[in-house]
Amino acid sequence: MAALKISIVFASGARIGPGKAALLESIRDTGSISAAARGMGMDYKRAWTLLDSMNQAFDTPVVEAAPGGTRGGGAALTEFGADLLARYRRMEAATAGLAADDLAVLAAHARPDPGLKV
Amino acid sequence: MAALKISIVFASGARIGPGKAALLESIRDTGSISAAARGMGMDYKRAWTLLDSMNQAFDTPVVEAAPGGTRGGGAALTEFGADLLARYRRMEAATAGLAADDLAVLAAHARPDPGLKV
Repeated sequence: MAALKISIVFASGARIGPGKAALLESIRDTGSISAAARGMGMDYKRAWTLLDSMNQAFDTPVVEAAPGGTRGGGAALTEFGADLLARYRRMEAATAGLAADDLAVLAAHARPDPGLKV
Repeated sequence: MAALKISIVFASGARIGPGKAALLESIRDTGSISAAARGMGMDYKRAWTLLDSMNQAFDTPVVEAAPGGTRGGGAALTEFGADLLARYRRMEAATAGLAADDLAVLAAHARPDPGLKV
């Protein structure tokens, strides 16, 4: 088994990869930054930093306080945040299908437990 | 402008991404680990560690000493190393084509110089 991980790299150097996509998804599903972070085993400060970097990377935010939400309160994806996540997941699914044959050939040569991982 | 970066992640946790692919390519082109590392602005020890991790990740090495080569001497991709590199580049090209429209839409919203990059 082998999988393809994708990251979007913008001209500015900003990146969106599996971790940020998962965080957006978790906020969409839980309606809360702290619940999303907890569910991912990530501390709140780290989640907030990732979101801040995404909000700064684009001309429109990806996450906003949900109605009634303040500090520690609710959070929701903006329309752009939802679109970003949907595009990421679509690219991920499409590339996975396209790469499946090559990945299977390479995985057949992979050792189960190499000693050195970098 | 935005680009898609791909990494292959094996069940063992071993990964092949843009840096390792570029190193294989540079060894193929220069015939030498030290020349490849120098050309990439990478120290020799780092290049060697990356190659060692790849050689350990598979049931067959990706790089071998070229005929006559010893320490500091020539190096060449094995048949498997060349195949790995070719598959990586093919997946990269195919996914780039497939993602182009989504990347263009997202890049149109990217700020040129966000302050925080994580």
